Amino acid sequence: MAENQKESLALSIRAQEEKIKQLRTNNAETTDIDAEIASLKGLKQQLDALTGGKKKKAGKNAFTLKTAKGTKDHNDKEMAIREKVFSTITKVFKKHGAVTIDTPVFELKEILAGKYGEDSKLIYDLADQGGEECSLRYDLTVPFARFLAMNGKEYQNFKRYHIAKVYRRDQPAMTKGRMREFYQCDFDIAGTYDSMIADSEILKILTEALDNLEVGQYTIKINHRKILDGIFEVCGVPEEKIRPISSAVDKLDKLSWEDVKKEMTEEKGLPSDVADKIGEYVKLKGSRDLLEKLKADETLTKNASASKGLEDMTTLFDYLDIFDITHKMSLDMSLARGLDYYTGIIYEAVTEKSAPPAMAEGKKPKTKANSDELDESTVGVGSIAAGGRYDNLVGMFSGVNKKGQPNLQIPCVGVSIGVERVFSILMSKQKAEDIKSNETEVYVVSVGDGLLKERMEIANELWKNDIKASFMFKNKPKLDKQWNACEKDHIPLAVIIGRDELDKGEIRIKDMRSKDEGQGGGVTIQRNNMVQEIKDRLALM
Amino acid sequence: MAENQKESLALSIRAQEEKIKQLRTNNAETTDIDAEIASLKGLKQQLDALTGGKKKKAGKNAFTLKTAKGTKDHNDKEMAIREKVFSTITKVFKKHGAVTIDTPVFELKEILAGKYGEDSKLIYDLADQGGEECSLRYDLTVPFARFLAMNGKEYQNFKRYHIAKVYRRDQPAMTKGRMREFYQCDFDIAGTYDSMIADSEILKILTEALDNLEVGQYTIKINHRKILDGIFEVCGVPEEKIRPISSAVDKLDKLSWEDVKKEMTEEKGLPSDVADKIGEYVKLKGSRDLLEKLKADETLTKNASASKGLEDMTTLFDYLDIFDITHKMSLDMSLARGLDYYTGIIYEAVTEKSAPPAMAEGKKPKTKANSDELDESTVGVGSIAAGGRYDNLVGMFSGVNKKGQPNLQIPCVGVSIGVERVFSILMSKQKAEDIKSNETEVYVVSVGDGLLKERMEIANELWKNDIKASFMFKNKPKLDKQWNACEKDHIPLAVIIGRDELDKGEIRIKDMRSKDEGQGGGVTIQRNNMVQEIKDRLALM
Repeated sequence: MAENQKESLALSIRAQEEKIKQLRTNNAETTDIDAEIASLKGLKQQLDALTGGKKKKAGKNAFTLKTAKGTKDHNDKEMAIREKVFSTITKVFKKHGAVTIDTPVFELKEILAGKYGEDSKLIYDLADQGGEECSLRYDLTVPFARFLAMNGKEYQNFKRYHIAKVYRRDQPAMTKGRMREFYQCDFDIAGTYDSMIADSEILKILTEALDNLEVGQYTIKINHRKILDGIFEVCGVPEEKIRPISSAVDKLDKLSWEDVKKEMTEEKGLPSDVADKIGEYVKLKGSRDLLEKLKADETLTKNASASKGLEDMTTLFDYLDIFDITHKMSLDMSLARGLDYYTGIIYEAVTEKSAPPAMAEGKKPKTKANSDELDESTVGVGSIAAGGRYDNLVGMFSGVNKKGQPNLQIPCVGVSIGVERVFSILMSKQKAEDIKSNETEVYVVSVGDGLLKERMEIANELWKNDIKASFMFKNKPKLDKQWNACEKDHIPLAVIIGRDELDKGEIRIKDMRSKDEGQGGGVTIQRNNMVQEIKDRLALM
Repeated sequence: MAENQKESLALSIRAQEEKIKQLRTNNAETTDIDAEIASLKGLKQQLDALTGGKKKKAGKNAFTLKTAKGTKDHNDKEMAIREKVFSTITKVFKKHGAVTIDTPVFELKEILAGKYGEDSKLIYDLADQGGEECSLRYDLTVPFARFLAMNGKEYQNFKRYHIAKVYRRDQPAMTKGRMREFYQCDFDIAGTYDSMIADSEILKILTEALDNLEVGQYTIKINHRKILDGIFEVCGVPEEKIRPISSAVDKLDKLSWEDVKKEMTEEKGLPSDVADKIGEYVKLKGSRDLLEKLKADETLTKNASASKGLEDMTTLFDYLDIFDITHKMSLDMSLARGLDYYTGIIYEAVTEKSAPPAMAEGKKPKTKANSDELDESTVGVGSIAAGGRYDNLVGMFSGVNKKGQPNLQIPCVGVSIGVERVFSILMSKQKAEDIKSNETEVYVVSVGDGLLKERMEIANELWKNDIKASFMFKNKPKLDKQWNACEKDHIPLAVIIGRDELDKGEIRIKDMRSKDEGQGGGVTIQRNNMVQEIKDRLALM
């Protein structure tokens, strides 16, 4: 039969080559020809697999066997940790009334265009194969805003979470260890509400998620765009320089004040005394005490923007007190956040473990090479979650009415948890071989004869009773191989059967974690009591 | 401040336009210029949003507000059904010892090339932005085989499931209602085992999944590629025509025998008497009785391929009897399955509800327009799951050694459940507004005064005790709006607070599903007993 297949394939290959030749002669469309060539390649690969490629390719792969650059497979052990992280976070989100939605992995190119400033060049585009121009999503926030603009009339009060992959074609030189495909985990509250109530619940949710993930000690830095803008105004920053200066300030977690000041003055042309005034403010860190200090600063409170921001922050602190999370916050005037679209409070959670090595040693990192492989590009270096209020993004999608107002404006506040960093923290806590990636509770083992059908019968009875069971797919498996499989998969119980015992209506049950019993151990019970005995034992585990 | 922002944006736009002009003058790379243009577009959109676009675009969207063709958003109600389907299926998979892995959404183009025959033209390619050529995955099987070829030495005994999206750029004319992005749900067993043991467990898993999904009555058609190939051989089909004739037979679930015969003879040049002989075989359907009939057919049993297939099937039926699922199977000689890579048993589950309207009426569908929007392209029309054994696919990726053998050959057997079709069956069973997409258990309602801080305190106490609670984000919410929110979200319990009651240390709890109590109803209890009372009530629900 193999010879028949080979001949048949060889014939198909000749026919396909003829077809391509004709398409070329007839000036067919390139995409059509390409498809036929792909088909031809496949036939040749099949033939190679069948013949062992002996005609020309012996000892060589026909192609590169790898995943695309910047992407990786996640094996069963890694997925077990991922699923634990996702379910922990999802549980918190659902406790706070969240629902989930799903958006496509690619969007029309124009939906994403111009939302990410100069990072737009990192967007992956789909090839032009006729039809619309599309791009892979860069984050989950822009698709969410697009969803709200399309469906928002039904979703004016909406708590939604979305855990999914996003795509960034980071430049090789910039991306040592940065993944091009990675998970984001977003929670957002959309709707027009009274001041700071939703904002405070987002912070509450963030603390619950981080506590339950057991990532260690963390601090949530908070600030308010309106306070920051007010500071820049009263210090004398010209209006057109507010965004660039704000993005310089945002680097204070990575650079020294001297370097940031240099960027402000030399690169961005700010007078030195103005930079110094800013320096006095952005060095400030504290809690409600700092808030009171700022409120006592008349220069600041006379500024409309700062005054509104300080009022918001006062309300926020009242709510944080009620939710008992004020002690986890640090009001930090140097926090500015990169994205342009924030309009209210902004925040960023940092853990001890999330600082890159150079920072922990108090050194200034020269390149991004210091960051670990699972560095999360949604949040700044060293941070494990970040977010803020963005009241105008939905309006950018909704179009405007005749009065020149957005057709639909839905204020939003949200947080993105840097799950890739959480994974890497949790993975580093344990050895891969100690992670149980399956949930199997019972392994059915035969002693002596193969007893395949008997093992199948027992497994079937266990499955019927919702007990997770496996057995070896061999007619006559060796005993030690069965024990090895059981141990490798960390299966807690074994049901052991032998011909003699079965004839007496008996089986043995062995607790695999009690080493002292040895491989011959276990207790003999009536076969009829098997399910109940196993359920009782599992209930105690 | 808005005026400042506008001016600042206008300045940035002018600067950006200048930058692009310079890049063009300097003949910069197109991708760089494109990125800057994208950035410029974004700035203009921001300005439009701020000014209401009144300068030129009043009343018009700046761009098309939609998802890309063939893709759609899934809202919270749809996601609630999806999550239920996924968790039901996942539970079954885990009961049978499965683990999950994750592969990237795009692969190197050459990994996918030529695996899908002429359907290769439906593969989405990423744009050439420098670097590797990549394509979106077309299914989950080829990436799984690639994973095994890369990591297989550690995964020679492997039950894995993978639920994820795949991408097919189906031609508009062919795709009425066919999605370009849709979920697949695959379960596969990889490894070298004794005959038909893993195969029978796959069929057991499929029956458990379909039973638990409550999709209604179903039948699993089974056949064996070796029996089919044997039939073609003994009927006198020339070797090079076996695949084309097999794919004609596969259409018997959609076309009449006359039409299939026409395809065999007129299109594919088979002599009429050969086609008639095939017709006698492929019309056969049955169970073990049919198997015995075929085994009594000496013409067939003398054929090596058919003989091996019949032996496999006999073993399989023994195991299906043990697993108590033989009655759900139909041995069906017309089942051929489209994909080339199957080498052993093949199967396809059909439900009453999965037949398209035209078939249900006994008519021959002329176009695919009859299929519903969530038609699943992994499986044939009318089928809800499908799969088979593919022993050579991994070897196609592993390359060959000096002896011309694949470096690694891992036999596999698997099934793909058509979850999109399952969703559409389940969604059609209920009204969207009856679906509870959140899990909130308690809504905290205030009567009279707003009592925001008091509501927050109560919500905080409930969260601390793992009770899922929400409240309205308003300082002074109206009572009827609170009831409406509670009802719309199908929240079963309300905690009602009022100033007088709080002063007495009391609150009210109301069961929202007991209509007779009216809005003023509920029982008054001590605030101290609130958590216990709620837990007791939830335990009874």
